[in-house]
Amino acid sequence: MKRVQLSHGGGGQEMNQLITNLFFRHLGNDILLRNEDAAVLNCQGEIAMTTDCFTVSPLFFAGGGNIGKLAVAGTVNDLAMMGAEPQYLSCGFIIEEGLSFDELEVIVKSMAEELKVSGAKIVCGDTKVVPKGCADGLFINTTGIGHIRKPGISASNVQPGDAILISRDIGCHGACVLSARESLKLVSPIESDCATLWPMINTCLEQEIPIHSLRDATRGGISAVLNEWCEASQVQLVLDDEAIAASDDVMGGYASYLALNLTI
Amino acid sequence: MKRVQLSHGGGGQEMNQLITNLFFRHLGNDILLRNEDAAVLNCQGEIAMTTDCFTVSPLFFAGGGNIGKLAVAGTVNDLAMMGAEPQYLSCGFIIEEGLSFDELEVIVKSMAEELKVSGAKIVCGDTKVVPKGCADGLFINTTGIGHIRKPGISASNVQPGDAILISRDIGCHGACVLSARESLKLVSPIESDCATLWPMINTCLEQEIPIHSLRDATRGGISAVLNEWCEASQVQLVLDDEAIAASDDVMGGYASYLALNLTI
Repeated sequence: MKRVQLSHGGGGQEMNQLITNLFFRHLGNDILLRNEDAAVLNCQGEIAMTTDCFTVSPLFFAGGGNIGKLAVAGTVNDLAMMGAEPQYLSCGFIIEEGLSFDELEVIVKSMAEELKVSGAKIVCGDTKVVPKGCADGLFINTTGIGHIRKPGISASNVQPGDAILISRDIGCHGACVLSARESLKLVSPIESDCATLWPMINTCLEQEIPIHSLRDATRGGISAVLNEWCEASQVQLVLDDEAIAASDDVMGGYASYLALNLTI
Repeated sequence: MKRVQLSHGGGGQEMNQLITNLFFRHLGNDILLRNEDAAVLNCQGEIAMTTDCFTVSPLFFAGGGNIGKLAVAGTVNDLAMMGAEPQYLSCGFIIEEGLSFDELEVIVKSMAEELKVSGAKIVCGDTKVVPKGCADGLFINTTGIGHIRKPGISASNVQPGDAILISRDIGCHGACVLSARESLKLVSPIESDCATLWPMINTCLEQEIPIHSLRDATRGGISAVLNEWCEASQVQLVLDDEAIAASDDVMGGYASYLALNLTI
């Protein structure tokens, strides 16, 4: 099996081959393929900029999800949460020496697939290879920019009288990664709900639904989001416990994890 | 000694404290302190966008340089090399559990110092903490955007009759990191020449010097830059060996390294 070597990050011929044969082949577009020190973009007006490092372990999880899909969806979603159309992404790979090319290619292909959902493009990138033992397989940073379609959507804009809507049942991604990480054998495997939310947000904006604040619940879950809103907007929130759905599988997954930790 | 724990990356209270007491304190500005999912920026016209992951080992090297200084100067320089004024940077930290807060603070302070040279601001960030053994102390990604002050500067724009100028003697940063990494005992310690080049480029642009292409030689050194120019611009380059200066210390450093590798 072909594996990534330190020389693939060395700035020479092998790195050029990696970039051309893998990254350009799957992620290539007119801007990226110019291959300059920096991409040249046209921007007018208010834009949003956001960054995220992805260090998820393991790299692959149930339901076909992997770190690549997550790295695109996560940053695209952070833009969408500001009412911004995801347009241009940068992508930095930190690869541990020894990662298999096959796995890397699956990850890069997932990124390409996920980019199609929002129409965003990767316009610049960077690749580093670190010695074996100096990273956990692969880390990805994605940074995104995009035009703000509806200004004023903000964590500090939650207002008395607002309704809080949750788009689906909670906890799937967390429980899915946890079960993969701890090798939990669950009766029903939980699939990550990692997904690009821009089409949904775009529809809301087009329908002129008066959104005051948006968040995708990631680390810290919805409790962190709600706390952030309280603090930023100086409001109190009233929650209906029954209205916050979590599937039996997710609840069971967390219960198994707690049991596992109690028994070891 | 206080050290970074996994909980500092967990999205809860300890992470908030790390962000507020360290990152916001040293890097804070009106945009960053809004603390949204994405920063809101005003952009008009052509902008450049570039990204770089910094994985240098060790984190500190001779002459007061460290990964933080490098992470700012590197990305700012990639913008400058496109004739773009460095304006907005994102910053992603991947921290290995156990990194000392004191070291992290020195690194973050260096970033703040280096940002002053170009006037660029860090407008958004992300922090992840990975378990001990899953990273090499600290990795930093910086992604930058900025207005292009002089369009058309490009690796594909090198033209017959152009003069190639090198701004100083070569090899210092590479030899400096190498000597720190291999614990070479050199008679004269070599200091990294890692620096923000925007003021120099800005002066050239203001003086309307007709620049066709710019590069800061990083991985691969000037040989990689020259090769890239040949390929992108379809030109042949004639070099004057005598005009490419390298200090005796740098030459000695590389010679020591070769000797070291021959003897072990």
